[in-house]
Amino acid sequence: MKNIKMKIEYDGGRYLGWQRLSNSDKTIQGKIENILTNMTGTKVEIIGSGRTDSGTHAKGQIANFKTDSTMAFTDMLDYLNRYLPQDIVVKKLEEVPERFHARYNAVGKTYSYRIWNNTIPSAFERNYSYQYPDKLDIDKMNEACEKLIGTHDFIGFSSLKKSKKSTVRTIDEIKIQREGNIIRFTFTGNGFLHKMVRIIMGTLLDIGAGVMESEYIDTIFKSGVRSQAGETVPAQGLFLEEVYYTK
Amino acid sequence: MKNIKMKIEYDGGRYLGWQRLSNSDKTIQGKIENILTNMTGTKVEIIGSGRTDSGTHAKGQIANFKTDSTMAFTDMLDYLNRYLPQDIVVKKLEEVPERFHARYNAVGKTYSYRIWNNTIPSAFERNYSYQYPDKLDIDKMNEACEKLIGTHDFIGFSSLKKSKKSTVRTIDEIKIQREGNIIRFTFTGNGFLHKMVRIIMGTLLDIGAGVMESEYIDTIFKSGVRSQAGETVPAQGLFLEEVYYTK
Repeated sequence: MKNIKMKIEYDGGRYLGWQRLSNSDKTIQGKIENILTNMTGTKVEIIGSGRTDSGTHAKGQIANFKTDSTMAFTDMLDYLNRYLPQDIVVKKLEEVPERFHARYNAVGKTYSYRIWNNTIPSAFERNYSYQYPDKLDIDKMNEACEKLIGTHDFIGFSSLKKSKKSTVRTIDEIKIQREGNIIRFTFTGNGFLHKMVRIIMGTLLDIGAGVMESEYIDTIFKSGVRSQAGETVPAQGLFLEEVYYTK
Repeated sequence: MKNIKMKIEYDGGRYLGWQRLSNSDKTIQGKIENILTNMTGTKVEIIGSGRTDSGTHAKGQIANFKTDSTMAFTDMLDYLNRYLPQDIVVKKLEEVPERFHARYNAVGKTYSYRIWNNTIPSAFERNYSYQYPDKLDIDKMNEACEKLIGTHDFIGFSSLKKSKKSTVRTIDEIKIQREGNIIRFTFTGNGFLHKMVRIIMGTLLDIGAGVMESEYIDTIFKSGVRSQAGETVPAQGLFLEEVYYTK
């Protein structure tokens, strides 16, 4: 039996997120599993590196599945991209050791978030960014990023309730790049809690707009209270860029 | 009465093109006119710099309209972008002399065309480019562009029948830029015949792929026979970038 690792790109706009639902076929996992099942003639389950929420995009989601199929990988890739909807694309297939598990073995991820920073909307960016019309102070946001980087309990920046599962994560790097009216934020870390990137983004926007001081990040870390952080920004600006594995 | 020049951006994917149709409300002109008519309370007609075909996008379409409205331009812009569908955006409004006519006074245009040059499709570029999987020789295409630049009868590169109207146009510049898997072609000239950019593109692709020699451009100019040129590439890769007027 082969264990196959796949790299997947999707425009999440039309979907209810990554994870398969029994009552809807509007999920990325569901779409891919159905086609793999048709292709191989036996029921296939795929393991994603993690869920992405409804509306979130991916440029480099990673998943794996096991199959007895002897089909060549180039034929498999052709088959998948012929039958998948055009907003889901399998970019790459490769055989990996039997023990490889896309979720358990993931050691880090990069997400990006795109802001359209102008008072006039954009016809082309509307589905791939969040319009924020006010002026943003990039220096202040970078100051706040310095406080976010490192190992912290991020429960205040997540939609999770307190539980026994650890909510400690490490953010290695946050980059902020402006190109024209787009401000692109990239977050690299060992893992991200549910809605963590979008809540951090909402907080950074408050700081960039001057309605919150960057010192307040420490207060949120100390209290762990979600309501002290910024809003959850919309999913359409969020992209899962890359998932990292050790060699 | 004020004469107002507007700069318009649109994602043409859902529309039957620029020009208003009596039997459909799926046109850009129709959408904008309806909202201007609601806004001013009197029937407004807008004059575009030219038509764009079904599915073609625009970053800088120019139009003008006349109105007695005394509404401030910032309020007008807000009103238009609030009521227009999100894939049509009015970027700018400015008052111009009464004699300004968006079509008659246009002295040039820039169009761009985007190729996704990879065997694997792209989930994000699918609506804004044409996938061409084969290797393309940029030098050969540049050679062909040298032949296209200048003043020629472009009837062989258009969907027009021979008529009394001149089909002579001047192309000032063609640029080919590769960035990753995207090859972006930009065409600047004093005017373009119906489907001219898309037929030139189809011809350049034939030349880049090595199935046509660049010298064949001269043959098509000489004969003026449409069927000798390449295919009309799909509209979704085409963008009206800019329209030029003399000061």
